[in-house]
Amino acid sequence: MPRYDLILRNADIATVGDRYSADIGVRDGRIVAIAQGLEGEAAQTLDAAGRLVTPGGVDGHCHFDQPTNDGSKYADDFFTGTRSAACGGTTTVLPFAVQQRGASIQAAVDDYHRRADGKAVIDYAFHLIVADATKDVTQRELPMLIDKGYTSFKIYMTYDDLKLGDRQIIEVLAVARRHGAMTMIHAENSDCIAWLTEQLLEAGLTAPRYHSSSRPMAVEREATHRAIALAELIDTPILIVHVSGREAVEQIHWARGRGLPVYAETCPQYLFLSAEDLGIDPDDPMHGARCVCSPPPRDKANQQFIWNGLSSGLFTIVSSDHAPFNMEGPHGKRVAGEEASFDRIPNGIPGVETRLPLLMSEGVLGGRIDIHRFVELTSTNPARLYGLYPKKGTIAVGCDADFVVWDQFAEGEERTLTNQMLHHAVDYTPYEGMKLRAWPATTVSRGRLVWHEGRFQAEAGSGQFQPCLRPRAPRDSNPLDQWL
Amino acid sequence: MPRYDLILRNADIATVGDRYSADIGVRDGRIVAIAQGLEGEAAQTLDAAGRLVTPGGVDGHCHFDQPTNDGSKYADDFFTGTRSAACGGTTTVLPFAVQQRGASIQAAVDDYHRRADGKAVIDYAFHLIVADATKDVTQRELPMLIDKGYTSFKIYMTYDDLKLGDRQIIEVLAVARRHGAMTMIHAENSDCIAWLTEQLLEAGLTAPRYHSSSRPMAVEREATHRAIALAELIDTPILIVHVSGREAVEQIHWARGRGLPVYAETCPQYLFLSAEDLGIDPDDPMHGARCVCSPPPRDKANQQFIWNGLSSGLFTIVSSDHAPFNMEGPHGKRVAGEEASFDRIPNGIPGVETRLPLLMSEGVLGGRIDIHRFVELTSTNPARLYGLYPKKGTIAVGCDADFVVWDQFAEGEERTLTNQMLHHAVDYTPYEGMKLRAWPATTVSRGRLVWHEGRFQAEAGSGQFQPCLRPRAPRDSNPLDQWL
Amino acid sequence: MPRYDLILRNADIATVGDRYSADIGVRDGRIVAIAQGLEGEAAQTLDAAGRLVTPGGVDGHCHFDQPTNDGSKYADDFFTGTRSAACGGTTTVLPFAVQQRGASIQAAVDDYHRRADGKAVIDYAFHLIVADATKDVTQRELPMLIDKGYTSFKIYMTYDDLKLGDRQIIEVLAVARRHGAMTMIHAENSDCIAWLTEQLLEAGLTAPRYHSSSRPMAVEREATHRAIALAELIDTPILIVHVSGREAVEQIHWARGRGLPVYAETCPQYLFLSAEDLGIDPDDPMHGARCVCSPPPRDKANQQFIWNGLSSGLFTIVSSDHAPFNMEGPHGKRVAGEEASFDRIPNGIPGVETRLPLLMSEGVLGGRIDIHRFVELTSTNPARLYGLYPKKGTIAVGCDADFVVWDQFAEGEERTLTNQMLHHAVDYTPYEGMKLRAWPATTVSRGRLVWHEGRFQAEAGSGQFQPCLRPRAPRDSNPLDQWL
Amino acid sequence: MPRYDLILRNADIATVGDRYSADIGVRDGRIVAIAQGLEGEAAQTLDAAGRLVTPGGVDGHCHFDQPTNDGSKYADDFFTGTRSAACGGTTTVLPFAVQQRGASIQAAVDDYHRRADGKAVIDYAFHLIVADATKDVTQRELPMLIDKGYTSFKIYMTYDDLKLGDRQIIEVLAVARRHGAMTMIHAENSDCIAWLTEQLLEAGLTAPRYHSSSRPMAVEREATHRAIALAELIDTPILIVHVSGREAVEQIHWARGRGLPVYAETCPQYLFLSAEDLGIDPDDPMHGARCVCSPPPRDKANQQFIWNGLSSGLFTIVSSDHAPFNMEGPHGKRVAGEEASFDRIPNGIPGVETRLPLLMSEGVLGGRIDIHRFVELTSTNPARLYGLYPKKGTIAVGCDADFVVWDQFAEGEERTLTNQMLHHAVDYTPYEGMKLRAWPATTVSRGRLVWHEGRFQAEAGSGQFQPCLRPRAPRDSNPLDQWL
Repeated sequence: MPRYDLILRNADIATVGDRYSADIGVRDGRIVAIAQGLEGEAAQTLDAAGRLVTPGGVDGHCHFDQPTNDGSKYADDFFTGTRSAACGGTTTVLPFAVQQRGASIQAAVDDYHRRADGKAVIDYAFHLIVADATKDVTQRELPMLIDKGYTSFKIYMTYDDLKLGDRQIIEVLAVARRHGAMTMIHAENSDCIAWLTEQLLEAGLTAPRYHSSSRPMAVEREATHRAIALAELIDTPILIVHVSGREAVEQIHWARGRGLPVYAETCPQYLFLSAEDLGIDPDDPMHGARCVCSPPPRDKANQQFIWNGLSSGLFTIVSSDHAPFNMEGPHGKRVAGEEASFDRIPNGIPGVETRLPLLMSEGVLGGRIDIHRFVELTSTNPARLYGLYPKKGTIAVGCDADFVVWDQFAEGEERTLTNQMLHHAVDYTPYEGMKLRAWPATTVSRGRLVWHEGRFQAEAGSGQFQPCLRPRAPRDSNPLDQWL
Repeated sequence: MPRYDLILRNADIATVGDRYSADIGVRDGRIVAIAQGLEGEAAQTLDAAGRLVTPGGVDGHCHFDQPTNDGSKYADDFFTGTRSAACGGTTTVLPFAVQQRGASIQAAVDDYHRRADGKAVIDYAFHLIVADATKDVTQRELPMLIDKGYTSFKIYMTYDDLKLGDRQIIEVLAVARRHGAMTMIHAENSDCIAWLTEQLLEAGLTAPRYHSSSRPMAVEREATHRAIALAELIDTPILIVHVSGREAVEQIHWARGRGLPVYAETCPQYLFLSAEDLGIDPDDPMHGARCVCSPPPRDKANQQFIWNGLSSGLFTIVSSDHAPFNMEGPHGKRVAGEEASFDRIPNGIPGVETRLPLLMSEGVLGGRIDIHRFVELTSTNPARLYGLYPKKGTIAVGCDADFVVWDQFAEGEERTLTNQMLHHAVDYTPYEGMKLRAWPATTVSRGRLVWHEGRFQAEAGSGQFQPCLRPRAPRDSNPLDQWL
Repeated sequence: MPRYDLILRNADIATVGDRYSADIGVRDGRIVAIAQGLEGEAAQTLDAAGRLVTPGGVDGHCHFDQPTNDGSKYADDFFTGTRSAACGGTTTVLPFAVQQRGASIQAAVDDYHRRADGKAVIDYAFHLIVADATKDVTQRELPMLIDKGYTSFKIYMTYDDLKLGDRQIIEVLAVARRHGAMTMIHAENSDCIAWLTEQLLEAGLTAPRYHSSSRPMAVEREATHRAIALAELIDTPILIVHVSGREAVEQIHWARGRGLPVYAETCPQYLFLSAEDLGIDPDDPMHGARCVCSPPPRDKANQQFIWNGLSSGLFTIVSSDHAPFNMEGPHGKRVAGEEASFDRIPNGIPGVETRLPLLMSEGVLGGRIDIHRFVELTSTNPARLYGLYPKKGTIAVGCDADFVVWDQFAEGEERTLTNQMLHHAVDYTPYEGMKLRAWPATTVSRGRLVWHEGRFQAEAGSGQFQPCLRPRAPRDSNPLDQWL
Repeated sequence: MPRYDLILRNADIATVGDRYSADIGVRDGRIVAIAQGLEGEAAQTLDAAGRLVTPGGVDGHCHFDQPTNDGSKYADDFFTGTRSAACGGTTTVLPFAVQQRGASIQAAVDDYHRRADGKAVIDYAFHLIVADATKDVTQRELPMLIDKGYTSFKIYMTYDDLKLGDRQIIEVLAVARRHGAMTMIHAENSDCIAWLTEQLLEAGLTAPRYHSSSRPMAVEREATHRAIALAELIDTPILIVHVSGREAVEQIHWARGRGLPVYAETCPQYLFLSAEDLGIDPDDPMHGARCVCSPPPRDKANQQFIWNGLSSGLFTIVSSDHAPFNMEGPHGKRVAGEEASFDRIPNGIPGVETRLPLLMSEGVLGGRIDIHRFVELTSTNPARLYGLYPKKGTIAVGCDADFVVWDQFAEGEERTLTNQMLHHAVDYTPYEGMKLRAWPATTVSRGRLVWHEGRFQAEAGSGQFQPCLRPRAPRDSNPLDQWL
């Protein structure tokens, strides 16, 4: 008679490919059997009672306890950040080990492990932010780190302390190709933003809503086109992160039509927020600061383009880009006095906990995408892109027992999202007041019920670091060959 | 202790979403358990020995024993056709019940059941070819037939005895919307083809290769754009069948970018054949007749565009468009005498057995698409599009036990495709001489080993008719609303 | 000492290519000298006093006294129509000799000459509307008529008594290619319009504004794409008439990028009117009938796309599509009783007199296009496209002395357009109330001052028929060749 | 009786807008009368005898006696350069005053005047190359220089000693907008070229043909897109110089479709040369150096795209980009020894004399563009773009008497182009051996016959500097406004 640590009975399982009713048998943190009427004994049995069960979310883009250079401070460390993720149905997160200019990436990785160790409550892997693509970095460090399970890089085309020039981007892409890594690119034209910001400040236009004017869609479009061209030069895949607007979407659509492997990420802020949210409250001029992130939310009509991109297959993943800054307090987004200007507002918004419930509510239950696409965008594809699949990202025999049992709320019984419900350390949510049609009843991480019956119940440090596989085969050939 | 009819052990299972090693337990023709080290007893046990196992193929477009009006004759009936399919790894086929002008569709369905009954060796469903979209057909017959499990229509924009005018297409699309059915469209501009054919014949250009000149890409592109526009008018999905060329691809790509639900099918002939194959043998002017199908294979450079469309997600399904005409004999493609002209050659080529092996060999093992996409294109998506999913189209607990165990041939041990290997009743294959890197070792249909160790072993009539579910929810609202 | 019939002194001459100050010497109706300080004697001298002088307008699309089949009646005959044109600065018009189904085109031409003779006050040529493309028409009549100076055809893709099927369109295009003629195409999908109209009427949506719902942009786009494809098949130029919306514009832009010779016309209604004008007056439900024309004016945002098309070079000509139906009276657009439905409203609006002043006011003086482009769009290009150049369409030595001296109104002294100012026989203008920044002070037709100092002063019948040259070289080669 | 300095009789005059036969009367270097049978006396009479007469060419892009930083040396000074231009039908040239990094632009202008004074034989104006966009340059110098008649800037996105970063480009564009100037942009991505060049050299691929591999079309496309985006940011027109390939063409086509004022130049090298010309002679590996210019000529199929761009209106001007480097000698393109590598070859090819004859031969007489478009591309549009119109760029009363009388060679009597025929100081022409169907019989510059009956006959220094007008109205408004 088979013995299990956990049996989940009567699950309505949905994966990228499948939808079926079955029982799931878990042993040693992994799924070992899926069957109708699973026979066997279990230490713990949970009855899904026919409720929807999806793979645990994989958040491919979030920021916790990240060192900053500008005096800002992330409100979430690895404990509060992963706690918040778990309560929202996410079982794996990929935050960023950020290289400091002049320092090695290994140093950043070591430091970041220290920040995660003993704190994380769900599993995690690290992306590497390459801020200084020296020869030593590209020739020695990155290949070595890829071998150790850090197989995705993020590079910036803007932000003074992070941005790489085209030549450095090319060098990083060449490493990614040679060693089978994945490159994520933040695509906005730095010089355009700087010039617009100067003009705005000179004109005295400092309110949060001018953050949006300082980064119009054309600025994102240009950098997106450039990133695609550089990747085409090296003939290697890239992922454009947090695509916000229809102009960037058109570039990616064009690249795909030419057969280029250009992946794209979007975030809930581009589906649910708009530029209006940056300047909506006449009594509180700084109220809009709560929605300041980059790229900024666009006009309302743009949201439909992003939804289209989800249903049409244009977008590969939906991440939170969780960047947890408080509104109030000494490091808060409510900047004041001489600093009360949009360019001084800490840039980013929280969302690691709300990502899945919002997309389930409006996307799946609202009829905009089907359940398979939901799983693909939020779990399977990020796991695949970043080398965590098939351990993470699905419900199948052999994979980690990471899954979510969903509560759905009948029509008329929707819940209203408030920051009080959330488990991050941030003092607000930009989605305050939105209607929720579903929320995780139970989140299971490697067989452990980390969120269950409204209680978070995991110990700090119980999450594990997950080294990532190479998402691609290394390619020895010279990228030059295609141009001869 | 659980009991099974069949256990497949040590399977390397690949579905749209997953890839993992496990045992599969089958009972009453359905998969009831998937586990590592599945415990239980089985009437029959098969050891996959680590070989790749994929869902049985679903061929969404094939022709068997179809009545014709022009004296041509399909070589395959339901026995030889489904036998051929099974030996190539396909476990479900969707041929066409074709309405005769002036007659009801029900009559065509009844007749077609008589042709299939007692013959088919694997499961099958019927598409309906609507050749006469009278008010009775659109108002009464089609809704009734949808209720009975015939939920997909095919319509033609060319061929004199089949084609519908724009108004009739609109009426059919409106039915599809209202009742949740799917419409497949053969998109070529009839008048353009007729004019070009006249010009060619007048100029004495009658050889098979002029078939290609009579239907250039612009002719397919125009009809594709028109079909998209009509579907946009009614706001309902369509599938463009057998997309052959880059110009039609561009139209579909454009439609997708606008968020329109336009699905697309391509076929092996557009990946593996080219216009050159229509006129290649100087000693046998009619040799090219073996590759005459519509739309015709395009220039060699075009093949890459079709492959790009597979990897990029543009194409939804790959079907065979199996149209089994002999080359020789009284009804053969080798037309002679006064009839020796490209426009008299029976139009279509066989391919129901070679579809999966060719795509596995060149697509998956050749590195052009991954195994998940292979499964999606050849099995899961056709099952979904036509309302057979989740019974068909995947390997998961609860679904029919339809799957394929693959033999892969090491480099240097590839096999050469010959018509002798095949199990259709056609006297040639257009793919003669191609290299195969894989072939099904075993095909399992509802738990039965229909093809195993090089032997076909199913009884005529053991296949079952599968009524299709509605692929979409019926929509009561007036399509007009979007234009107000 | 040279002698002239007329000297125009101190003209600020603007042509497609040039802008300069000079005197113009006219003899026998033609310009024979242009000089600074022109020496010589003249029967008549006119001092332009530095005012702008442009070539007389050529209106490439207008309807006068055209026989109808539906009981409607054009208010303008050749006298009132050409009088109105002249007073608005137009010196050449190209109305349509319309073939009746079952009758010859020659009969239509003969009839139309009878209608024009003794009435027209400015010069005119005829387009031929081909409504029945029989073999006799395409093989015999059209070639013969081209030889006689009727070198442009218009064909319709909609309207039951006019529309041609694709095959007939192909035949007409083949004639145009072979004999060097130009084909104008009214591009709207007939079946789509018919279906939408039925749905609207069934739903009781009969007000004028539903005219717009019955012909959405997608309907125009589809037919535009199809027309382009058919012209591509035959490899011959076409002109898409009265392009109204951005979707058709995109098709034409795409065709141009591929190097196809697709010309495009737009009209003032798409620059100055919008769909709102069809339903603006709550007290007079039929008020919107005054703006009912096909294709209908689109949403306001669309106007900018059309203006962009003027400045970017996409559009080749701007015509009036003058279709003079009264609002009131027995044949009026204010249909009543059982007929009070948008589909019974005579289709078309007047505009032959306002075309140049509106485009000069808003386009040139409003800074949207330069004066050279104004001349190109309204005079030179229509003359070139239809074989009237260089006799018509410019100001140069050797050409007909057709020109306009413009009065410009200083800021704050703009005039308001009213129907009382106009010289057509129609009881309204859709542009009532618009601001005018310029109006012709003098219109000169072959050296005669037909409109001068606020007085129309030409005799009925003083206009001459102008046979048109072939706009293109005839091409003997078979259009099939490109597809071999 | 009027008196003239020169009468040209029986001219077949072609301008952008017109084609007609007339006599031209010239006084004080300007055209004062155009008439049929011009009456009057003249110091000199020339009989065109019905031959084609076009406006003198305006070459908007050529390099003479330009200071270099890399040891290379331009073979042509202002005497030989303008002599060569004149003999090929060009009457106005616009070479470049190039700012040295760290120096003022005024210094470059002063120096360049010294180089031109006493040497030029036809009229000239200067573009300013801005290589160091300091605040003083953008705030003080450029506005001052615009006032003085230097109204066009050229900026580079590549070449280490010339290139501007995005921010500097933005500043220059902002000046251009504010003061009504025109900005020309050399669009190639510098970093991509540097990386590819390094890879090629490391791989030992140093032959001239690898010049082409170091600058693929994607590199030009990226920079073109970026230039368009920066211009869109500032909302001001730009001209993309020497557009070479279909990928850049697509970007410009896309920009135009959006209504952006993006102008484009191409050059004879992209119509007549191809990448094959860089590596054609097996016996002389450095032979291809003669065609080394940037961007490089593309594949043969690309030429058709460039021709399409001429006929469709995409291109605004055709210039020579005359860059006169010898093949042989100490500064020659035939680099040797350690320097024998493609990246050391002086970059550019001669062509100021052959521009018009080649385009007339193959473009106009070869049936690819009409005569009006020829005049527009080679004379009228460059004059307009750069503020020389209407003094230059046309044949009309009031403008300078700059024109060309053409000899056309009958079929079978075409001439073969050889470098011996040319009047530059360069020791080769890349067009050696091409067939000529026309050549200027006479070139007239301000009424002087500078090239006549096969003799060059102007004195050094007889050309005049032409201050340029502002091509656009200055715009006071803040470009930021469009982003608010």
